[in-house]
Amino acid sequence: MTQGTTIKCKAAVAWEAKKPLVIEEIEVEPPKKGEVRVKVLYTGVCHTDSYTLDGHDPEGIFPCILGHEGGGIVESIGEGVESVKVGDHVIPLYIPECKQCKFCLSGKTNLCSVIRITQGKGLMPDNTSRFKCKGQTIYHFMGTSTFAEYTVLPEISVCVVRKDAPLDKVCLLGCGITTGFGAAQYTAKVEKNSTVAVFGLGAVGLSVVQGALDAGATRIIGIDTNTSKFEHGMKFGCTECINPKDFDKPIQQVLVEKTDGGVDYSFECIGNVNVMRAALECTHKGWGVSTIIGVAPSGAEISTRPFQLVTGRTWKGSAFGGVKGRSQLPDIVDKYMDGKLKVDEFVTFSYPLEEINEAFHVMHEGKSLRSVVHFK
Amino acid sequence: MTQGTTIKCKAAVAWEAKKPLVIEEIEVEPPKKGEVRVKVLYTGVCHTDSYTLDGHDPEGIFPCILGHEGGGIVESIGEGVESVKVGDHVIPLYIPECKQCKFCLSGKTNLCSVIRITQGKGLMPDNTSRFKCKGQTIYHFMGTSTFAEYTVLPEISVCVVRKDAPLDKVCLLGCGITTGFGAAQYTAKVEKNSTVAVFGLGAVGLSVVQGALDAGATRIIGIDTNTSKFEHGMKFGCTECINPKDFDKPIQQVLVEKTDGGVDYSFECIGNVNVMRAALECTHKGWGVSTIIGVAPSGAEISTRPFQLVTGRTWKGSAFGGVKGRSQLPDIVDKYMDGKLKVDEFVTFSYPLEEINEAFHVMHEGKSLRSVVHFK
Repeated sequence: MTQGTTIKCKAAVAWEAKKPLVIEEIEVEPPKKGEVRVKVLYTGVCHTDSYTLDGHDPEGIFPCILGHEGGGIVESIGEGVESVKVGDHVIPLYIPECKQCKFCLSGKTNLCSVIRITQGKGLMPDNTSRFKCKGQTIYHFMGTSTFAEYTVLPEISVCVVRKDAPLDKVCLLGCGITTGFGAAQYTAKVEKNSTVAVFGLGAVGLSVVQGALDAGATRIIGIDTNTSKFEHGMKFGCTECINPKDFDKPIQQVLVEKTDGGVDYSFECIGNVNVMRAALECTHKGWGVSTIIGVAPSGAEISTRPFQLVTGRTWKGSAFGGVKGRSQLPDIVDKYMDGKLKVDEFVTFSYPLEEINEAFHVMHEGKSLRSVVHFK
Repeated sequence: MTQGTTIKCKAAVAWEAKKPLVIEEIEVEPPKKGEVRVKVLYTGVCHTDSYTLDGHDPEGIFPCILGHEGGGIVESIGEGVESVKVGDHVIPLYIPECKQCKFCLSGKTNLCSVIRITQGKGLMPDNTSRFKCKGQTIYHFMGTSTFAEYTVLPEISVCVVRKDAPLDKVCLLGCGITTGFGAAQYTAKVEKNSTVAVFGLGAVGLSVVQGALDAGATRIIGIDTNTSKFEHGMKFGCTECINPKDFDKPIQQVLVEKTDGGVDYSFECIGNVNVMRAALECTHKGWGVSTIIGVAPSGAEISTRPFQLVTGRTWKGSAFGGVKGRSQLPDIVDKYMDGKLKVDEFVTFSYPLEEINEAFHVMHEGKSLRSVVHFK
């Protein structure tokens, strides 16, 4: 019985920026009031982890335990926890859903903000950490910290999923796949028979492609400068893939010409402000909707002529695909279980925790869609 | 009987940029196939006329007859015209509605594009002008040219209005008032009980205020650096008016603090790209919608951090308030006739055609909401 005790287990600790993760034995305190402790079985490795580890996030806090695409089983629950029980299979949520704050009550957004400030400081809602290593406090990351064998999360930060869903796959629904699929379905609300442009064919972009296809889009153009991604693009639902480097003119002009005036929906899945502009400007006058998903470098700004908007284009964005983690993520798990959403195909590599730095390495080399790290 | 003949009448001709208008006797040819000739009784004077006259519009064509906020009576119709008859009261439309092009058929936009190219060249759809003065071709402007006693328009560019609607008032629905009212109701779709910020309290901004009020907004904040406009602001429905110059911090920050996180909807009714940014950034995370209405100087660009959109704000814009001229403008005339939309209150000055330059003068001085020019 581990319940109620501090657990000693393994974790990949990010001691400082720009250094590899170090596998350490850490101590994980029991969950406090309103918290749950989860035995993490699998975790994906995402660009956001790398963004922080590489020191690009000015708000990154070290030492910390990274990781936010996890799948695990609830080991114990704190006082007052009612919506989650021991043994539940869960996906940690870096955007919680309290169902009580003004964001949740608005019905218009998934950006629950009730624990935003402490989460941003790498702490639990009571302003303390549950992690220690070598006597030192280790900070949480994105409220999830799935690069540890055990992690503690607020009750509102876990989504209970059906037990027949394989955790080594649905862990990826904790970030990238849901972000792309949701952006197409919840943020842009892609319509039947529409034309779609997807900039960037990584895991997020390919998931946008899936969301658009599922919504009935009939033409889906994938855009990437790395043509090795085109094979995946076509497999996931693109009707064509193009490389901006193959043209003498701006890619937005190429797309406008190719589509008789522009696409109905576009998505930026890279995090490049110039591509964000191209994505807006390739949409159709009168009704084009462009959705920003990628995270741009700190301080970078998007620009365009206001005429683009005055003539009927809409510029928007979303985080986690606009998906409300506790109430809507189970629907996406069902999509996967019903064979309507590819997830298995994203798992390019699998590593034991000890080799987690290799997962970062293949991601940087563009060799992987997703690596899944396992703790056994 | 004037039908079928070329009419000699008065018009204010813009011979060249940056020069006052000159009252001339002009010749107006009969309407050709699919066209109507209208006896203009009243016309408003709008900033867009001035923008072109002052040479700011790089696509301005001279000599021309300006004017696009008109009210008149159909004098004659060309071959094949079926939806308009002699004697109909009409408002000329600078955005036509053909109901057949892909824009009209989309149901998503009012930006009918079927005659866009010839209209942009100052010509009728057959690539010729109906105006002559002193033997010289005079170009059309915005497809309307209401600064003439008679003007010729495509059938698809007139909206037939009820005969009990006073043309000296509803002529103003041909541009500014509809642009503002429509932006609130059709573009942003302001919801009941919402909070709204309106940047710029000219005729367009005050009409946004009316549209928001009519939609059930409960807090409407007017923003202008000219505090003499606050009296109008409050009369038209603002719940408070503020001057950015009264604060040490950026106006978006002031508004976010004032409204516990930001407004639900904002509108830029000035044409200043810095104000457009402020208007976006003062909206609430998660659901804020900012609508650009103002026309920015040629070449100017809007900018912001993409984070503003990724965290749930939407940036959009519209022309003529997103209102489909032939099918929806009659509803707005009804709003006025039912006492639900103030129009009379916009008429600050009235001038005979001979004094039309005075109307530009008082507009530049910020003394007028709208001047109405009459031809009798």
